[in-house]
Amino acid sequence: MPALLIGSNVDGKPNFMTAAWCGIANSNPPMLTVAVQHHRHTYKGIKESGVFSVNIPSSDQVKETDYCGVISGAKEDKTAVCGFKVYYGHLLAAPLIEECPVNLECKVMHILNLGSHALVIGEIKETHVSEDCMTEGEPDVHKIKPIAFSVGLNKEYYGLGDVLATAFSVGMEMKKRPTHS
Amino acid sequence: MPALLIGSNVDGKPNFMTAAWCGIANSNPPMLTVAVQHHRHTYKGIKESGVFSVNIPSSDQVKETDYCGVISGAKEDKTAVCGFKVYYGHLLAAPLIEECPVNLECKVMHILNLGSHALVIGEIKETHVSEDCMTEGEPDVHKIKPIAFSVGLNKEYYGLGDVLATAFSVGMEMKKRPTHS
Repeated sequence: MPALLIGSNVDGKPNFMTAAWCGIANSNPPMLTVAVQHHRHTYKGIKESGVFSVNIPSSDQVKETDYCGVISGAKEDKTAVCGFKVYYGHLLAAPLIEECPVNLECKVMHILNLGSHALVIGEIKETHVSEDCMTEGEPDVHKIKPIAFSVGLNKEYYGLGDVLATAFSVGMEMKKRPTHS
Repeated sequence: MPALLIGSNVDGKPNFMTAAWCGIANSNPPMLTVAVQHHRHTYKGIKESGVFSVNIPSSDQVKETDYCGVISGAKEDKTAVCGFKVYYGHLLAAPLIEECPVNLECKVMHILNLGSHALVIGEIKETHVSEDCMTEGEPDVHKIKPIAFSVGLNKEYYGLGDVLATAFSVGMEMKKRPTHS
């Protein structure tokens, strides 16, 4: 799963938590999901303001990403410790991390209490991509260098690996193979 | 995002579609989300049976993974073309791909119509991991070799890259750094 930094303003101050239990929920309009434990400081801000941010850190920010996942904003000013420059966009109250190559501004559409976690479904109202992570007017994942996270035996962060194949293309080779039965 | 093969029985026959718009929704009980376009053949089976499978393909199965994303099961028997051996587990009607290192059996808990996609929230009722992808009794992501997918400029599949850091550990180094202000 991708390791992401979720941001909200709590009592007027920006706070960020790391989340990997996220997903894309809809294409039109664009929406995503974030699963958040109920006691999280960031979740308090999401409920209060009705908006939040999703910031995609790059591989260079793996320390900051891990730190925001283990420390609570109720105890430490994570923005200050990480030295994040925070800016605001169209939604006004969703804090965005300037150092992260991609920032999404999200408006809460639904919250489902599923048990240990609340599933927050947010509509992506605005997307900001660093100029130096764009190629031919499109976000370039090779420049963004996102972080993957896995549990199981290996609780580790990974970079993106080798290109295996081009999507919507390599699969057509299957049609040329004899059908198994 | 991870590239996954979502399975359901449609009119009694196993069918699979590729999905990357997925996420983990809850830890206890374990739940996940899959965003599916309403017209999808697999979605028909999910609605009919109330169960589905999530199969994690390995990097070796990138052709099959792409194929299941571009071809509709209404037109071709994807299971036959891919040569998938299908088995069933506790939920009886969620078809599982034996060749995939990880198979999850899911029961539909909620379906939200968000626009272009239906967001299916499923509880993971059973998890199957290939013996040769386990290390010390835990699923080992280095043996599973999952596939990542990205849109934007590069519509490609990727393997998992280098280990960047150990999670819940490397972030503690931030605390030793002087606080920015």
